[in-house]
Amino acid sequence: MATVLTGGTVVTAAECYRADVRMEQGRITQIGESVAEDGDQQVDAAGCYLFPGGIDPHTHFDLPVGGTTTADDFASGTAAAAAGGTTTVLDFATQHKGETLQQALANWQRKAAGHCYVDYGFHLAISDWNAAIQAEMTAVIEQGVSSFKLYMAYKNVLQVDDGVLLAAMRTARQHGALICLHCENGDVIAALVQEAVARGQTGPEYHALTRPALLEGEAVNRAVCLARLAQAPLYVVHVSCAEALRVLQEAQERGWPVYGETCPQYLLLDEACYQKPDFEAAKYVMSPPLRPAANQVFLWQGLADGNLLTTASDHCSFNFKQQKELGRSSFQCIPNGAPGVENRFGLLYTYGVAAGKLSLNQFVAVTSTNAAKLFGLYPAKGTLAVGSDADIVVWDPAEKRVITARDQVQRVDYNAYEGFMQTGNARAVFLRGRQIAANGRLLDAAPAGRYLKRSRFASNRMS
Amino acid sequence: MATVLTGGTVVTAAECYRADVRMEQGRITQIGESVAEDGDQQVDAAGCYLFPGGIDPHTHFDLPVGGTTTADDFASGTAAAAAGGTTTVLDFATQHKGETLQQALANWQRKAAGHCYVDYGFHLAISDWNAAIQAEMTAVIEQGVSSFKLYMAYKNVLQVDDGVLLAAMRTARQHGALICLHCENGDVIAALVQEAVARGQTGPEYHALTRPALLEGEAVNRAVCLARLAQAPLYVVHVSCAEALRVLQEAQERGWPVYGETCPQYLLLDEACYQKPDFEAAKYVMSPPLRPAANQVFLWQGLADGNLLTTASDHCSFNFKQQKELGRSSFQCIPNGAPGVENRFGLLYTYGVAAGKLSLNQFVAVTSTNAAKLFGLYPAKGTLAVGSDADIVVWDPAEKRVITARDQVQRVDYNAYEGFMQTGNARAVFLRGRQIAANGRLLDAAPAGRYLKRSRFASNRMS
Amino acid sequence: MATVLTGGTVVTAAECYRADVRMEQGRITQIGESVAEDGDQQVDAAGCYLFPGGIDPHTHFDLPVGGTTTADDFASGTAAAAAGGTTTVLDFATQHKGETLQQALANWQRKAAGHCYVDYGFHLAISDWNAAIQAEMTAVIEQGVSSFKLYMAYKNVLQVDDGVLLAAMRTARQHGALICLHCENGDVIAALVQEAVARGQTGPEYHALTRPALLEGEAVNRAVCLARLAQAPLYVVHVSCAEALRVLQEAQERGWPVYGETCPQYLLLDEACYQKPDFEAAKYVMSPPLRPAANQVFLWQGLADGNLLTTASDHCSFNFKQQKELGRSSFQCIPNGAPGVENRFGLLYTYGVAAGKLSLNQFVAVTSTNAAKLFGLYPAKGTLAVGSDADIVVWDPAEKRVITARDQVQRVDYNAYEGFMQTGNARAVFLRGRQIAANGRLLDAAPAGRYLKRSRFASNRMS
Amino acid sequence: MATVLTGGTVVTAAECYRADVRMEQGRITQIGESVAEDGDQQVDAAGCYLFPGGIDPHTHFDLPVGGTTTADDFASGTAAAAAGGTTTVLDFATQHKGETLQQALANWQRKAAGHCYVDYGFHLAISDWNAAIQAEMTAVIEQGVSSFKLYMAYKNVLQVDDGVLLAAMRTARQHGALICLHCENGDVIAALVQEAVARGQTGPEYHALTRPALLEGEAVNRAVCLARLAQAPLYVVHVSCAEALRVLQEAQERGWPVYGETCPQYLLLDEACYQKPDFEAAKYVMSPPLRPAANQVFLWQGLADGNLLTTASDHCSFNFKQQKELGRSSFQCIPNGAPGVENRFGLLYTYGVAAGKLSLNQFVAVTSTNAAKLFGLYPAKGTLAVGSDADIVVWDPAEKRVITARDQVQRVDYNAYEGFMQTGNARAVFLRGRQIAANGRLLDAAPAGRYLKRSRFASNRMS
Repeated sequence: MATVLTGGTVVTAAECYRADVRMEQGRITQIGESVAEDGDQQVDAAGCYLFPGGIDPHTHFDLPVGGTTTADDFASGTAAAAAGGTTTVLDFATQHKGETLQQALANWQRKAAGHCYVDYGFHLAISDWNAAIQAEMTAVIEQGVSSFKLYMAYKNVLQVDDGVLLAAMRTARQHGALICLHCENGDVIAALVQEAVARGQTGPEYHALTRPALLEGEAVNRAVCLARLAQAPLYVVHVSCAEALRVLQEAQERGWPVYGETCPQYLLLDEACYQKPDFEAAKYVMSPPLRPAANQVFLWQGLADGNLLTTASDHCSFNFKQQKELGRSSFQCIPNGAPGVENRFGLLYTYGVAAGKLSLNQFVAVTSTNAAKLFGLYPAKGTLAVGSDADIVVWDPAEKRVITARDQVQRVDYNAYEGFMQTGNARAVFLRGRQIAANGRLLDAAPAGRYLKRSRFASNRMS
Repeated sequence: MATVLTGGTVVTAAECYRADVRMEQGRITQIGESVAEDGDQQVDAAGCYLFPGGIDPHTHFDLPVGGTTTADDFASGTAAAAAGGTTTVLDFATQHKGETLQQALANWQRKAAGHCYVDYGFHLAISDWNAAIQAEMTAVIEQGVSSFKLYMAYKNVLQVDDGVLLAAMRTARQHGALICLHCENGDVIAALVQEAVARGQTGPEYHALTRPALLEGEAVNRAVCLARLAQAPLYVVHVSCAEALRVLQEAQERGWPVYGETCPQYLLLDEACYQKPDFEAAKYVMSPPLRPAANQVFLWQGLADGNLLTTASDHCSFNFKQQKELGRSSFQCIPNGAPGVENRFGLLYTYGVAAGKLSLNQFVAVTSTNAAKLFGLYPAKGTLAVGSDADIVVWDPAEKRVITARDQVQRVDYNAYEGFMQTGNARAVFLRGRQIAANGRLLDAAPAGRYLKRSRFASNRMS
Repeated sequence: MATVLTGGTVVTAAECYRADVRMEQGRITQIGESVAEDGDQQVDAAGCYLFPGGIDPHTHFDLPVGGTTTADDFASGTAAAAAGGTTTVLDFATQHKGETLQQALANWQRKAAGHCYVDYGFHLAISDWNAAIQAEMTAVIEQGVSSFKLYMAYKNVLQVDDGVLLAAMRTARQHGALICLHCENGDVIAALVQEAVARGQTGPEYHALTRPALLEGEAVNRAVCLARLAQAPLYVVHVSCAEALRVLQEAQERGWPVYGETCPQYLLLDEACYQKPDFEAAKYVMSPPLRPAANQVFLWQGLADGNLLTTASDHCSFNFKQQKELGRSSFQCIPNGAPGVENRFGLLYTYGVAAGKLSLNQFVAVTSTNAAKLFGLYPAKGTLAVGSDADIVVWDPAEKRVITARDQVQRVDYNAYEGFMQTGNARAVFLRGRQIAANGRLLDAAPAGRYLKRSRFASNRMS
Repeated sequence: MATVLTGGTVVTAAECYRADVRMEQGRITQIGESVAEDGDQQVDAAGCYLFPGGIDPHTHFDLPVGGTTTADDFASGTAAAAAGGTTTVLDFATQHKGETLQQALANWQRKAAGHCYVDYGFHLAISDWNAAIQAEMTAVIEQGVSSFKLYMAYKNVLQVDDGVLLAAMRTARQHGALICLHCENGDVIAALVQEAVARGQTGPEYHALTRPALLEGEAVNRAVCLARLAQAPLYVVHVSCAEALRVLQEAQERGWPVYGETCPQYLLLDEACYQKPDFEAAKYVMSPPLRPAANQVFLWQGLADGNLLTTASDHCSFNFKQQKELGRSSFQCIPNGAPGVENRFGLLYTYGVAAGKLSLNQFVAVTSTNAAKLFGLYPAKGTLAVGSDADIVVWDPAEKRVITARDQVQRVDYNAYEGFMQTGNARAVFLRGRQIAANGRLLDAAPAGRYLKRSRFASNRMS
C-alpha cells in the first residue's frame, strides 16, 4: 500500500513546485500532478511545504562527561528530533582513552540499537591516537562510519597535537573519510583558564572570556593549513564567529574543499546570556561559547552564500539542576553543552525563511541536503526525488507556537530558546514512508530508526 | 495522450536520479519509478540523461548590420537551436535610430512569428534614447519583454553615454526589468581603431588588438558602479576575460546583484585564431574579440563557482563569402559576429561535463536553469519538475560526433568550431511534449515555437 | 655672508635631529653641531622645528571662470603661501579653448612674472585636444612643465573623452611627463544635475548631491585602467573619498605607478557644511564636493600609509559676496572652489602631527618632499640636505592661533576653516636663504619668487 | 682631532646627496659642502657612497648546539662583520634549560666582552619558561636587552607552547620589549621527520622536505593571532616564503604592528641546493630551509614594499668537515645553520641595488635603519645625521669581487655564496669614527666593539 501526500508544495534545495508525492515501501516512487491510485492512503498537505526530513549532523546522546552523563539518551534524543522535523541524526561515537575505535563504535551501536525514533549514523570521535588506532580507521569506514572527529581544544582530555591531526587527515583522505574538527586553540585556552582561576574569576561568564573568538579563527586557519598539507577535505564543526568564517571563505575562494557547520545557538543567542543571574548563565556554557551578537549577521550571510553548508544542534544536554550546578564553585566544572535537536529545524525556518534571511531552497540545503551530501547519505536522504527515502516533513507555515521547556520532548530541565516564537510547525513527519510525529509530538509507536551505513566522502558531490 | 520517457536519468540544477517522466498537454505531470499508463506513448531513454531543454539567452537572428543581414533568420536559427538541444532562445529586438521601442518590438515579432522551431522571447536593444523612449519601457515590459540591452561600445552607432545608462537602469529597476550590458569602452576603442587604420594596420587581427581586455574590465567596473548608484541589478553579456570576471566576483562578494554571461567561443577559442591565413581570421571577428587562452581557465572557474550564471551563443552569423569578405580592405568593415546557437549545448557538455570542469548539475544550471530564473521564464522553463513545460533533451552520453559546417543546420557557410569533437548527442529533443529533433537533425515538422511573455525580474529568485 | 639657524631640530621625511643649518647663496651648505663662522648671521631656532618649506602642488591663481576671476592672483596667492609656510606653488596654467599650449603657458608666465613671493612652477591644464596640441607637449616639457592636467568632469567645458586621455597619457609617458587627472564621471554628473534642476532642486546642497562619491571612485578606476593601457604613471588630484582611495590602494599593491593627492578640506570638513543657512553653503561648493565625515579616517590613513602622497590646497578662491553669490538662483552658477594655500601647512601640522595621526617625518613627506619628487623639483626642493635650496620653515610648536579671515593674507572675504585652532606657527620662513615671512605675516619685501623649470618625471625617484 | 670624509655621496634611508662628513669623538658633527678644518684628517671618498654601517640583527656566535659549537665566536664573527660593512650585530644570548635569564645574559656578556670588532647587543632567547623567568624579563630589559626570542619549532628542545607565547608577549608589551619569533609548526615537523626517518629517508634533502613552507605560513598566522590577543608587537625572524609573507602583509594592511625579517639565503639561494652531491647539501641545512626559487621574487618585493623591514644573516656557522658531517647518517644530526655575517651587506647591495630591485635608500633601510629603529638603537645607529655615531661604510660601487671561502674572514670552511659576484666593495669601514676595515679586510687593531644597551621598543618609531 502506498501513501500519497496531496496538495502540498515540494521544496528541495533547488526547486519549489506543487505536486503530490507517492511513497511506497519506504521510498518516494512518484511525484506528479495526480498520482494517487485506488487503495492509496491520501494525506492532505494543502497549504503546506513538503520538506526533506531534517538531518542533524552533530549530536551527543548518552555521553558520559566528567562524572555525569548527558540528560538525553538515544531514545529521548531521537524522539525529540522526530518531533521537531529531524529524521536523521549523526551522533559522535566517542572513544574513551584506552579503547579501540571498534570498541567505541560497538559501545555506541549498543547504546543506540533499538532505541531510536529516527535513522541514525555515527561519526567517530578520536581521543587517543597511535599507529593501531590509525590502522583501525579503515575497518571503521567499512562499517559505514566515513567521518572522524578530532579536537584542537580540551587540553589533556581530548586535544590532539598538530602532528596527529595531519596523520589523521592523511589517513582519512586515503580511505575516503572526512575529518570533522573542533577548532579552538586549547593550549592558549588552558593558560587563560588557569590565569582566570588563579585570579578568582570562577563565575560562568569566565567560560566565555577565556575562549575568545580569535582563538577559534586561529585554529580554523591552522586546520585549513594542515588539510592543504594532507590534501584532505575538512569539515569545521560549530563555527561560531566571523573570525573563523573568514578563514573558511578565503580557503573556499581558493577552491579548497573546506566546509563549515554552524548551530542555532550561534545564529540566535549571544554572549549577553552570560550575564544572566542566579547561575542561569551556566545553561549557556558550551564550547565554543556564545559570541558578541555582531557575529550573527556574518553567520547568516555565510549560510546564504554557502560558506557554511550545514546547521547542527550540537545537542549535548545537561540538566540545570544537579548537572550544570556541578560548576557552581568554578566554571571549569560546568558540563559543556546545551540541548537543541528538537528546535533546530523550526528555528532555522523561523529566523531564516520567515525572517527573509534564507530562501526556502537554502533552508532545505542547510538543514538537510548538504549534510546528506557531505556525510554519504545522499540521495537516499537529503532530498525529495523519485527513489529517495520517504523522509518528509509536512510543514504548515501558518502555525505559530512558543518554544518552552514545559512541553518539550527532549529530556532536560530547560530550553535554551525558552520563549522564542516559532513560525510554522511540523504537522506530520514521515520516516521512510511511515508517520512518526504530528504537530510537534511523537506518535505512539515503537522506535523504528535504522542504523545508516554511510558512503565514503566524495568532494565532487559538493559542487 | 501522454508521452513517457522511460529509463533515463533526470538531471536538474540540483538533482540526478533515475526516473520516468510523463508529459501531458505540453507539461510534465509525473516523475516516478513507473508512471506510464495504458495508452501512453513510451520513449526509451535508457542510458540517457534527461536535461531541461537548453535556453540560449543571446541571439541575433535576421539582424541588419551595416548594409548586410545576418545569414540566419528565425527559421534557420531556431531550427539549428532545436537540432542542438536548445528549446528556448531570447533574441535581441533591436531598435533602429528613430524608431520607437514598440516599433522595434513589432518589427521583431513580425520577423519571428510563425517561423520559429523553438520557443522564443525578446530583449529590447536600445540604440536611441530620450524621454519618450524611457516612458515606453513600461509598455514593453507589459508585453513580456522584461530586459533591455544597452551598449557601452560601438561609438556613434549603438553606444550610449553613462548618463543614459544610469537613467535606463533606474527606469528598469522601477518596473522590474533587467539591464543587459555590452561592456567595452567604446571611446578608447574608437581612438585605437582610428590610430591603427591611420598606420595602415587594417588586417583582421587588428580587430582584436584595438579592443584589449583591459577595456572590457574597465567598462564592467563602470557598469557596476552605475548599477549601485541606480540600485539596480545588472546582467553583463558575453564576459570574455579575467579582467571583467574579477570585477563581477568582487561585486558579488559584496552582495550586489550583478550577473555574468559567457559564451563557448570565449571558453574554447582564443586569439590565435586571428593568425589564420587567407582572411580566415575574419570568421572570428566578433566583439569582444577572442582573448589570450589564459583567460579560459578563469571563465570555466567562474561558471563552476557561479560568478558567471549563463552561457549564450551570441549567435550572429555572417557567411565568410561575400559577408565577412566585405572587410578585406579593412577590419572595420567586417560584420561582427559568429554562429553558435546549434553547438552551444553540446560544447558545454563536452568541454564542461565530459572534461570534468562542470558537474551535470552545473551544466544544467548554466545552459538552462539560471537563464530561466534571470529572464522570468522559471519554473515553466529551466527545470524538470512537475508542472514545468515538457522541454526535454534526451542526451546520449555514449555518442560521439565531429562538429563541421558540412552537416550543420544553421544557414551559414562555416562553423567556428570546425573539427571539434562533441561527446554525447541529443538523441531526442522535446518542445512542450512534442519531439522536434532527433540525433542532431530537425524532424520534418511545422515550426511550433511560441512567443514567451516573460515575467519581471526578481532578485530573490537568484538565491 | 651666511645665515645660520641655531638650536633647532632638523626634520626631514626620514630624520629628526638637533643641528644647526648654514645657508649660503641660497643653498644649505652645512648641517652640524656648531657650524657658524665669524661674520655669519645667526638666527635662534631653539625649541623650533626646521621643516623644508611647504610645496603646494595645486593652486589656481588669477583664473577666469565663467565670467568672473579668482579672488587671488599670483601676488596675493603667493604672499598667503609664504605667510603660511609654503615656499613653492605649482599653479595650473589653463589652456582656453582655441589656444595653443604655448600661448597658455606664455599667458601664465606673464600673470606670474615679477609678482610671486615664493618660487613657482606650472602644470598645463589641457581643455582642447588635437594632433597639434599633442605635438606641442614636447616643447612645453622642455620649458620645464613636466605635468599636464586633464578633466574627466565638467562636460562640454573641460571634460575630454577617454580616447583623448589615453593619447595624452601615452604622449606624456614618451616624453617623461606626468598626467594629473580630475576624476569624476562628468557624463553622469551632467545627467544628475539636469535632473535636479528640472525638479527645482537648485540650492547649493544639490551641488554635492549630484556628484556622489561613487562617481569619483568609478572615474579613478577608469583612469587607472587607461594608465595601465598607456603604461604611464598617473597622479590623481584631490582624492576626496574612500571609494577613490581604495582603487588607488589596490593599484599600488599591484605595483602600478599611480599616486594620489588629497586636500585639507577633505580631511577636515564634511558635507554637513552644505546645511549652512543663508547661502553660506556656497562657500564650500567645490569639486569634488565635501563628503560624509566617515571618509576622513580613510584619507588620514591613506596619508600615513603612503597611498596618498601629497596634500594640496586646490586654492581657487572666490569672494562670497558677488562671486559665490552668482549662484543664488542655482548651484550650477556658483563658481567652484575655495581658498586654502595659506592654511594647508598649519592645518596638516595641527590635525596631523599634533593630533597624533602623522609623525613629524610623514608631515614633511606629505607637505613637501613627495611633491618635490613627483614634480621634478627634488632634491633642490623638498628636503633639508646639504646642497638643497635653503627653503626652510622655522616652526614653533608652542604657539597657538585661531584661523580667521580677519587677519588672513589671502585676498578673499572668507576662510573655509574660520575658527579652527592652529597648533604651532611659522616663526620664520626662508626662501633660498632669505627670510620672507615671520609669525604668519609677509615681511615687507619685493616679490622674489622664481620660475622653476622642472625635471621630467622619474618613477624610480618615488621608492 | 676630527676625520672628514670628502667627496662622497651621503645615502640615508631617505636622502642621497654629495657632502663631506666630519667625525669627532665618535660622532658625526657636521655634514656640509666643505667642512674640514685645519688639522682634520681627510679621507678621500670621491666616487663612493657613504652608507650607515650595517646592522645585522640576527647572529649566533659561540653557540653550543647538540654537542658541537658554532665555528665562529665573537672575535671571528665580528671581524667578519666589520670586513663586510657591518658595524653592529645583535646576537642571541640563549638560555640553556635550567638557567635563569640573567645567567644566560651574563654568559653571553662574558663570551663577547673584549672580543668584538664591532658594537654588539643581545636579544635573549628563552627556552625554559616559568613564573620566575617571566618575572626576570624586566631586569633583563633594564640591562638593555629589549627583545626576546621564542621558538615555535624544535619540539622538545626550544619549542614553547602557545600559552607560553601569549604570556611572553604580554609581559614583553608591558615592559616595552619586542618578541622575536621563529615561526614553524614544530609539532607537525616532528611528525614529518619521524615519518621520513622511519621510511629510511635520511639524506639532507629530507631536512627541507619535512619542513614545508605551509608550516611556516601557518605558524606566522598563529603568531599574529597571539600578538593581537596580547596587543603586543611582533617581529618574525627569517621569513623565507610567500606563505609567511602574505600573512604579514595582510596584518600590516590592517594596521597591526607586526614586522618581518628575511635573509640573503632566502633571497638568493633555493631548494636546488639540496640536490648537491657528496653530502654538500648539508651546507644548506638551516631552519627554515631554502625554498622553491619562486619565493624569491615575493621576498624582494616585500623588502621594496616595506612588508619585510630587515635583512639578517642568521649567521650560525658550522664547518662542513666534522661538524656538518655529524649528520651523514641522518639529516636530523646535521647542525642547523650557515654563515653569512660577512656577506650580507655586499649581497644586498649587489642583488638589490645593482640589480635594480632596491633603491639606494631602500638598501640603507633594510640593512641598517629599520633594525636600529626596531631594536632601540636609533638614531645613534642606523643613519648618517649630525649627532649619530660615526659608523660609516665608504662603499666603492666601481669595484667587483668574487665571494669565496678562500679569502673570507669568517672562520668556517665554506661559504654558502661561493662563486657569487659582488658588485662594489667596502673601501673603508668606520666604527664610531675610527677605521676598522679596508677593502674587505680587517685592519690590524684591537677589538673595540662596545656593548649596546638598547632602548625599549616604541611602535611610533616605525612610521
